[in-house]
Amino acid sequence: MNFQSKLIENAVEEIAKLPGIGKKTALRLVLHLLKQEEQSTSLLTDSLLKLRKEIKACKTCYMIGDTEECSCGKEHRDQSVICVVEDIRDVIAIDNTAQYRGMFHVLGGIISPIEGVSPKDLNIEALIERVHEAAGQVKEIIMALPSTMEGDTTAYYIGKKLKEYKVKVSTIARGVPIGSELEFTDEITLGRSIQSRVNYDL
Amino acid sequence: MNFQSKLIENAVEEIAKLPGIGKKTALRLVLHLLKQEEQSTSLLTDSLLKLRKEIKACKTCYMIGDTEECSCGKEHRDQSVICVVEDIRDVIAIDNTAQYRGMFHVLGGIISPIEGVSPKDLNIEALIERVHEAAGQVKEIIMALPSTMEGDTTAYYIGKKLKEYKVKVSTIARGVPIGSELEFTDEITLGRSIQSRVNYDL
Repeated sequence: MNFQSKLIENAVEEIAKLPGIGKKTALRLVLHLLKQEEQSTSLLTDSLLKLRKEIKACKTCYMIGDTEECSCGKEHRDQSVICVVEDIRDVIAIDNTAQYRGMFHVLGGIISPIEGVSPKDLNIEALIERVHEAAGQVKEIIMALPSTMEGDTTAYYIGKKLKEYKVKVSTIARGVPIGSELEFTDEITLGRSIQSRVNYDL
Repeated sequence: MNFQSKLIENAVEEIAKLPGIGKKTALRLVLHLLKQEEQSTSLLTDSLLKLRKEIKACKTCYMIGDTEECSCGKEHRDQSVICVVEDIRDVIAIDNTAQYRGMFHVLGGIISPIEGVSPKDLNIEALIERVHEAAGQVKEIIMALPSTMEGDTTAYYIGKKLKEYKVKVSTIARGVPIGSELEFTDEITLGRSIQSRVNYDL
């Protein structure tokens, strides 16, 4: 595309570097910003620059936030259970269910030989250290990782590393999503949901 | 959504103000920027701020660009024909077809009583002035406006205003898009494509 303007071209190219945004969408966003008052552009850019400069990862759980100490050590969180997740989006998603009040541990990715991600690139050692230092206070580790080969590999790897500690290791339930029809559920999910059937308390 | 961080929340809210981007996508973009080097965020914000500050609208055709004089007055553009469009995206789209080498005139919108856009809000007077000042040099005005009621109204309004000048007024062809099947074309388009049939030169 020829934009007849270096300014527009630069802005479009920078926006189109973001995932899921092509040049046409980028141009639409640029034109939107040009139609708005100048202040709305500076509000946007300020918030991004401030975020990039001031954001900190929690030293304990690696959740990013405004300070180096997030809510993971606070009293309102159950200190006996740690939920292991891939990235901070999972923390937000699980927190928003209001079904879990324990701590989190953000791995920052999952083991993936294809993408060149090895256990060393993740915050796995820090998790083991955390369990070690808690000295029996942590009773359970819940794996909330993607149900893919990479996710299962990561869970298995962490599980083996945790074997020497007296800690229960569990994984979130896989099965038929609530509200969905059995006939439209894929075979692997359905098969696994039968294997992992749950007894009714009658 | 509770992001546990004011910095993330602000950035997500600012990005989610852009059209077509919700909070989940905004969060994805924010996390992408956080994974990249700090420089990529500043490149993005710099390009947006520079664009917003330095962009200029051409005094003649209202196409936005780096200077107040765009290519519309240059020799390589046919000075006898003006293509009237809604916004600058249409200029880029038509320019990229490489089928048109004349000048453009950007209205900055179309007449829409529902959205409160009246002829006064658009660059229509400037177009009439432009035709007037060219004193017969402009031979044709091509309307490349959306084929909606608003687009047709705008074209009709401009057409009437141009009546006193010796200038041909035309509109881009409406019809069945190239490569599409007749049976899947809507009735109005198909009906219009029969009305506006073109004779073969045999």
